[in-house]
Amino acid sequence: MKIKVIVNTSFRRMDEIFSPADQRRMADLVEVIWGKDERMPAADFERALPSADVVVTSGWHYGDALDRAERLKAIMDVSGSFPLSLDYEACYLRRIRVLSAAPGFGRQVAEFSLGLAIDAARQISYGDRLMRRGAEQYLWHGNVDTFLLYDQPVGIIGYGGLARALHPLLLPFGVSISVYDPWLSEGYLRRQGLQPVSLEELMSSSKFIFVMAIPSVENRAMLSRELLELIQPKAVLILASRAHVIDFDAATELVLEGRFKLATDVFPIEPLPADHPIRAAEGATLSAHRAGSVAQGMVELGEMVVDDLEAIVKGMPPRRLQMAEPELSMRYTSTRAKSPDST
Amino acid sequence: MKIKVIVNTSFRRMDEIFSPADQRRMADLVEVIWGKDERMPAADFERALPSADVVVTSGWHYGDALDRAERLKAIMDVSGSFPLSLDYEACYLRRIRVLSAAPGFGRQVAEFSLGLAIDAARQISYGDRLMRRGAEQYLWHGNVDTFLLYDQPVGIIGYGGLARALHPLLLPFGVSISVYDPWLSEGYLRRQGLQPVSLEELMSSSKFIFVMAIPSVENRAMLSRELLELIQPKAVLILASRAHVIDFDAATELVLEGRFKLATDVFPIEPLPADHPIRAAEGATLSAHRAGSVAQGMVELGEMVVDDLEAIVKGMPPRRLQMAEPELSMRYTSTRAKSPDST
Amino acid sequence: MKIKVIVNTSFRRMDEIFSPADQRRMADLVEVIWGKDERMPAADFERALPSADVVVTSGWHYGDALDRAERLKAIMDVSGSFPLSLDYEACYLRRIRVLSAAPGFGRQVAEFSLGLAIDAARQISYGDRLMRRGAEQYLWHGNVDTFLLYDQPVGIIGYGGLARALHPLLLPFGVSISVYDPWLSEGYLRRQGLQPVSLEELMSSSKFIFVMAIPSVENRAMLSRELLELIQPKAVLILASRAHVIDFDAATELVLEGRFKLATDVFPIEPLPADHPIRAAEGATLSAHRAGSVAQGMVELGEMVVDDLEAIVKGMPPRRLQMAEPELSMRYTSTRAKSPDST
Amino acid sequence: MKIKVIVNTSFRRMDEIFSPADQRRMADLVEVIWGKDERMPAADFERALPSADVVVTSGWHYGDALDRAERLKAIMDVSGSFPLSLDYEACYLRRIRVLSAAPGFGRQVAEFSLGLAIDAARQISYGDRLMRRGAEQYLWHGNVDTFLLYDQPVGIIGYGGLARALHPLLLPFGVSISVYDPWLSEGYLRRQGLQPVSLEELMSSSKFIFVMAIPSVENRAMLSRELLELIQPKAVLILASRAHVIDFDAATELVLEGRFKLATDVFPIEPLPADHPIRAAEGATLSAHRAGSVAQGMVELGEMVVDDLEAIVKGMPPRRLQMAEPELSMRYTSTRAKSPDST
Repeated sequence: MKIKVIVNTSFRRMDEIFSPADQRRMADLVEVIWGKDERMPAADFERALPSADVVVTSGWHYGDALDRAERLKAIMDVSGSFPLSLDYEACYLRRIRVLSAAPGFGRQVAEFSLGLAIDAARQISYGDRLMRRGAEQYLWHGNVDTFLLYDQPVGIIGYGGLARALHPLLLPFGVSISVYDPWLSEGYLRRQGLQPVSLEELMSSSKFIFVMAIPSVENRAMLSRELLELIQPKAVLILASRAHVIDFDAATELVLEGRFKLATDVFPIEPLPADHPIRAAEGATLSAHRAGSVAQGMVELGEMVVDDLEAIVKGMPPRRLQMAEPELSMRYTSTRAKSPDST
Repeated sequence: MKIKVIVNTSFRRMDEIFSPADQRRMADLVEVIWGKDERMPAADFERALPSADVVVTSGWHYGDALDRAERLKAIMDVSGSFPLSLDYEACYLRRIRVLSAAPGFGRQVAEFSLGLAIDAARQISYGDRLMRRGAEQYLWHGNVDTFLLYDQPVGIIGYGGLARALHPLLLPFGVSISVYDPWLSEGYLRRQGLQPVSLEELMSSSKFIFVMAIPSVENRAMLSRELLELIQPKAVLILASRAHVIDFDAATELVLEGRFKLATDVFPIEPLPADHPIRAAEGATLSAHRAGSVAQGMVELGEMVVDDLEAIVKGMPPRRLQMAEPELSMRYTSTRAKSPDST
Repeated sequence: MKIKVIVNTSFRRMDEIFSPADQRRMADLVEVIWGKDERMPAADFERALPSADVVVTSGWHYGDALDRAERLKAIMDVSGSFPLSLDYEACYLRRIRVLSAAPGFGRQVAEFSLGLAIDAARQISYGDRLMRRGAEQYLWHGNVDTFLLYDQPVGIIGYGGLARALHPLLLPFGVSISVYDPWLSEGYLRRQGLQPVSLEELMSSSKFIFVMAIPSVENRAMLSRELLELIQPKAVLILASRAHVIDFDAATELVLEGRFKLATDVFPIEPLPADHPIRAAEGATLSAHRAGSVAQGMVELGEMVVDDLEAIVKGMPPRRLQMAEPELSMRYTSTRAKSPDST
Repeated sequence: MKIKVIVNTSFRRMDEIFSPADQRRMADLVEVIWGKDERMPAADFERALPSADVVVTSGWHYGDALDRAERLKAIMDVSGSFPLSLDYEACYLRRIRVLSAAPGFGRQVAEFSLGLAIDAARQISYGDRLMRRGAEQYLWHGNVDTFLLYDQPVGIIGYGGLARALHPLLLPFGVSISVYDPWLSEGYLRRQGLQPVSLEELMSSSKFIFVMAIPSVENRAMLSRELLELIQPKAVLILASRAHVIDFDAATELVLEGRFKLATDVFPIEPLPADHPIRAAEGATLSAHRAGSVAQGMVELGEMVVDDLEAIVKGMPPRRLQMAEPELSMRYTSTRAKSPDST
């Protein structure tokens, strides 16, 4: 008998994350309950839950329904993070695996972050704007403030899934990479060929700074004005995870003063207010939270879900989605109110 | 006794290409004749040439002075190409090596080309322009036309120094790479892990097309309207070498029609006329011939020159500059009148 | 107050796995209870366990003492596998992490396995034996039966820690890699650049077959005579994990018949009986279970232990040791009686 | 009209170096004169030479016949080195390219050298011999003198074609690589990620020493007793090019004393005298000049020849064979009398 899987992805459309081949594969593997674009009615969900083996969802909107999920083995979140309002203690005790499709965003965000870094250092979008104004400078006259990624000191803040995907893209540039990540041991980082450093050292010694830390209760505005002032003149700060981790007002001021360059995909409020001063900063490259929602990348999420359903059907541990860990699950924090990625 | 080297780099300033360390190294190794930013007076040059062992120059502006260069072993061109008005036959017969610092441009142009490719596919500069207009779309609404570099079919036209530098940057993206290069055998290309293809097949099958062919007497407007029309809808054409090789008017029209995306660092006339229609094309990323003149990269040229002077002093063959080859030296063509890179 | 750690490594000597620097680091981080080469007396262990936060051990020799381990957060096994006689159910329920230093063997076994593969294909130890007998053949006369690893089809049985360490060593040889691993989904394997195949296909299509599956209740003698007979003439079978997974008698016969080449580090009985016929097989390379006990590699185990103690002290999840998973912990099987690695 | 090519490979058999596909390709491309396994009769050769465009040969056995080779554009040597008795001055003046298939040996020798290095460091063939004697030691008892290649300091003597092929095989081991090569500038080596060092420093600081220098008039017995005595205790010396470059008697004595380990594919006299003491050295791995004559590798030579014939037919420079350079052609020296590889 097939295992039963509630597929209630709410704000993610089914065909956004599941290729036709993966939809067929899933239907062959398991009994799919629901599986439509609209959110499953609460009453239907509560009725189905006691006999469900797996729930595929975006966040956890079902309160204490968990108590009645007697057969549940796994919750798979396709929102890009872990559910915030879930009772993780109960899950651990009842050995329900909480899994996230977050790793599916690694490649697309890594590629975009590399693009932002080269854009800022080589002034690609700035140069494009100048050409549209007829104000461009050719050759070395247009390269007064540029530098290469090759051979530079690079700093990465937060060596999680995004950074692990970025790492191989940086290697052919011959860069040396320093990392600040208080969740990881120095030995682990060194084994990856990375130099563990303090945040102060990273900010002051790096020519490229990639901010890839996921928002937590501990890192709100971690990149304070003081730390931002340590950045080398004209260095590049790439903001790829969430504005939660930075004093965005201070960053805006410093960029407008020409202290360093900023390339950012995220903002403290999205949509960004029309009159926000960063919109006019020549030293900034601005992107409307677009690093992680490319169609070609989104179907990886569905592929991961079906691969791990296959593992569960075979009685094997899931290997593609990321498993929530007790030590970390309480540290994640919501940035959903302000950043619509996972709402 | 030290060998004598005329260093007359004309439009390249000495401290643009020689780091202070390399200037010292050169002075220790050889007797530097001239070595100032201004062009060496013709009379002085002619007087010095008979006793010179090496000439470091930008192009060859000395007519038939070569006949009197009795000790000359090498001509080193730091302009980025090979001298056009040189008598190569005489050089080969007299065993004067003609060397070019062209490989020194490989890394900087490769990095910029990758930046342009990601920019166009992920709409980075387009998205930046939208944000400055307050017209941005967030998340998937802003990703309707985007795609990843990962896993895509990539075509490279011209597998010379620029392409060889680009190749390792592309590998971590898992792309398959096809190459059109009539100067290379299929066996050579296959050994590099590349698929040799016809130009037609490359144009019609690639999602990213990197144009890296150096201008020759044979490839003027090689990328004709017919070939450009083979490009897949929304694919990305990156023009990194010279506009010489493309029907730029046809490309402009097709981009304005939205047929594909263009990211270009070069133009048929530079500076580009203020009213050229490509300046307004939303499907284009425009750069003012800035891929190959970053200060950090230019000092590689001087490093190569001094490394190869060191080789010559030791009686060894130069290994860092590129040597002119009889079969190819007659095929290079001037794009100097229109593109100021090498004037 | 420091956490308390019982370090009772029994058959592993302290200075075998802990470098002096790691011993100091451990002493600074935690309160070390015991930490001598002799096994901790049972009574002492039982007395210490209730207040211990972590136990570092080789296997679990303490019966149901677990019931009284009230503060226990982690069991770290440095034997190279997971403890066999442990009550995993109790550990999961009480959220005691069971961790193994098995990944610390990855690099040393991978290097040795590559060495065995090249040895067999290029007849290095066979050629060395011939030279000592004065029976060597030079040049092509000595290469009648040899082939390269480059460009060959490679099969790996079991893509666990050993295979993951081997994978990057194989990449520069341009091989295509097929994998048989029933514990992993096809999607996971494809994402690693591997081709998932059936065991039959792997055996019949590979020129090099690396056996890296850990022994389980399901894979005893999995490589049966029938499967071994599928191996291509003169292909190379490298046995790197345990003889448990192969019909060793059949393999011996087939190698003596010259059907394929065998390079093995493990045997069904160790020490191997003096009269075992494999000892005389010219088509075999024989190694006395020496792939995974090189001093330079063993200190990695201690480094991993201390790195993960550091993580636990900081309230973070361990990242270097391997965590036991419910689905797999019941499948591991003992090969200790016959193979002394973990006794 | 097709160009005419004399294919007179003498000691290399036609089907040893040309695959059937390459033989057909060659016949389609050019008019093949001769092309049999037996050496072309001198009179026939002399008669054919004046109308030949290319000669494919093993060494140059034709004396001053060159004077009458009026159309000759290239001499392609498939012996593994450059012809020794050729008048290079005449070739340069008449612009006849002298080309060698030496790069075709790179991969097979690199793979074998890596195999020898791991064999010696991990005692694979020594351990195999012990098992055949019934004297093996298991586990750590059999690993008293072993170490890993991972993370070690590696030295390479001579960074030519063999070393360039070895380099990518070493990278995944995380080694640091020092090079001694007086024919290359420090800048060139640094750009390849290598550390240029003196021979003394290399010998004393490396745990693995790969000897890959081709024999020249300058490097006979370059590795003198004094230098060999600098080698670290138990370090590994891999002799991959020619015994010409080493004081082999001194090396033999030091290995017999247990000072370091030697893995060698070449000997001062081949076949090695039956009573040479190195045959009994337990610290040695011995191979009968078998690194570079594997059938699978030899057909690369023919592929290179045909690829470059294709280039010449198209009027393009050859790219796969190695071109002789004036500075170096006079430095090569014969080791043919003693090492039969190129006779």
